[in-house]
Amino acid sequence: MMAPRTIALDAMGGDHGPEVVVPGAALSLTRHPALSFIFFGDEARINPVLDQHAALKARSRVVHTALAVAMHDKPSQAMRRGKGTSMWLALEAVKNKEAHAAVSAGNTGALMAMSTLILRPMTGIERPALAALWPTIKSECIVLDVGANIGADARKLCDFALMGAAMGRALFHVEKPTVGLLNVGVEEIKGNEEVKQAHALLKETAGLPIDYRGFVEGDQIGQGIVDIVVVEGFAGNIALKTAEGTAKQIGTYLKDAMTRTLLSKVGALLARGGFKVLKHKMDPRRVNGGTFLGLNGIAVKSHGGTDALGYASAIDLGYEMAEAELVSRLSKDLDSFHHKLAAASG
Amino acid sequence: MMAPRTIALDAMGGDHGPEVVVPGAALSLTRHPALSFIFFGDEARINPVLDQHAALKARSRVVHTALAVAMHDKPSQAMRRGKGTSMWLALEAVKNKEAHAAVSAGNTGALMAMSTLILRPMTGIERPALAALWPTIKSECIVLDVGANIGADARKLCDFALMGAAMGRALFHVEKPTVGLLNVGVEEIKGNEEVKQAHALLKETAGLPIDYRGFVEGDQIGQGIVDIVVVEGFAGNIALKTAEGTAKQIGTYLKDAMTRTLLSKVGALLARGGFKVLKHKMDPRRVNGGTFLGLNGIAVKSHGGTDALGYASAIDLGYEMAEAELVSRLSKDLDSFHHKLAAASG
Repeated sequence: MMAPRTIALDAMGGDHGPEVVVPGAALSLTRHPALSFIFFGDEARINPVLDQHAALKARSRVVHTALAVAMHDKPSQAMRRGKGTSMWLALEAVKNKEAHAAVSAGNTGALMAMSTLILRPMTGIERPALAALWPTIKSECIVLDVGANIGADARKLCDFALMGAAMGRALFHVEKPTVGLLNVGVEEIKGNEEVKQAHALLKETAGLPIDYRGFVEGDQIGQGIVDIVVVEGFAGNIALKTAEGTAKQIGTYLKDAMTRTLLSKVGALLARGGFKVLKHKMDPRRVNGGTFLGLNGIAVKSHGGTDALGYASAIDLGYEMAEAELVSRLSKDLDSFHHKLAAASG
Repeated sequence: MMAPRTIALDAMGGDHGPEVVVPGAALSLTRHPALSFIFFGDEARINPVLDQHAALKARSRVVHTALAVAMHDKPSQAMRRGKGTSMWLALEAVKNKEAHAAVSAGNTGALMAMSTLILRPMTGIERPALAALWPTIKSECIVLDVGANIGADARKLCDFALMGAAMGRALFHVEKPTVGLLNVGVEEIKGNEEVKQAHALLKETAGLPIDYRGFVEGDQIGQGIVDIVVVEGFAGNIALKTAEGTAKQIGTYLKDAMTRTLLSKVGALLARGGFKVLKHKMDPRRVNGGTFLGLNGIAVKSHGGTDALGYASAIDLGYEMAEAELVSRLSKDLDSFHHKLAAASG
């Protein structure tokens, strides 16, 4: 289980660059001592931080580039001047088998466009899906697509189910992750045509490596009733951001409520152990990292504004997916499903 | 501002029937003393409860029917045996101008189908939109459609904007409510075709009675950055339920956190004033009531499981929309918009 793995890091991505990426890698290394790293970016900024982490430095290599994708570049701009940037080189290292996964906290649109161009979609896949880890009252689930594909037909939704299951297998260590289709009701008559057709396909196709549980509704995601929640990217992105917004909103209510009287303040102080647990539960850094699935290589997107703790979670994610041989396994699952579809329609 | 208004109540709708509907009406009457009520349903169940509320009884009339829509009937079943049910009669009272609004805590699908059949959509509207009140850190906003229309083209999205604005005008007392289109990003290139076209229409059509603010994202709904959030029903329903689920999830975290040690428990006890404020803020009964918009009459849907306090909020909602002459105003707004569209394309 502890094969040596190399992670390619876009050291310039994110709001803080090497000041977060390097300590993040150091933290992840303490959890996975067999890891090694390649940092791509400005060596004048990377090396001073790396010098403060001797153990990490011993397992790292720095590849200098002065070029970087700006956080607010449009994907088209980023692509035009993308070649040779730290993001580009990190993805190329995966393509060239120098690294087992790439992690970047840079611009999401640029990372999606570049990873698609460099790593290429798997056979039968048009564009990757973006999967997010979602905290639940039980532990975590995976929701996809959260914004890479606006609209998806039934076949694409089934592809997402297989992609999510491959990720779930790597992270949750279950052979057949449970899968639900996000819908506006749990009855078979509910929803749009794509969702109804995908439901029929997932129910009727024998031998898929998933445990399909039917429709789920928005309020069931956080209850953790399935490992994988499948949805097209428009509704999926809105669901993800709405959940983030609601958590923030309740955080505001809670803070206001606990500071409004002296008694509340004293109570909150006494209960600070409890609040610490709550804060930890709601800490977005615990489950940081979206993944582009359906490419011939692993590309993880970290939140741009995260700190070393959050960045380490994104590296862990890349490591666990590499460790589980996600790419070769998923590629086989998709091929097998597409052959079954072709056989059924032929 | 205090014209006498009559509200038609489906006394048998919801999980509790008259035991919640009658006390809910009594509570709403204390806030709007000019109201009067017609209760439709089983008089043997309504009268004993009404006898306990003398002031309400003096302003109420009971119309007996032994028929009621079951909470779990499919809309098609409910329609086949719908005639003469308490829900049907309440809607007919609005159609016959005996009441200014109907309120039901019954089956949503049945209420949608019956209200469409009895009240009829306004000219140029195919089916009503379901609008929900959504708590924000500032106060409340209106989100529509939350599930009545799966998919919506650009014109429909614009109709939703006008419908939501009419409701916002009634509730928030502003002449031109601010409106945002829910999307997966705020840049003009983001989203599906329908959303992009609706954006162009709302930006370019002069003289609409709204203050259009462009795209908003899921995490901005609860921030209250606009009065009205427009979205097609699939994504809208998922957003609403995801927000409800997230609130419930955090509630679970909070409860666990506050009961795990004796110190947390003592702290939570001291801070109970603060928790009470929080509970009030998060109380779904405060903003209870969805509304079907775009019909020639006002039909309000209360949550099925709510209590008298929640039911009173739904009645208040019906009252305020009737008071603001929502139907005639909205009908004019839609006609004017559709004429502009026809003129532009002719």
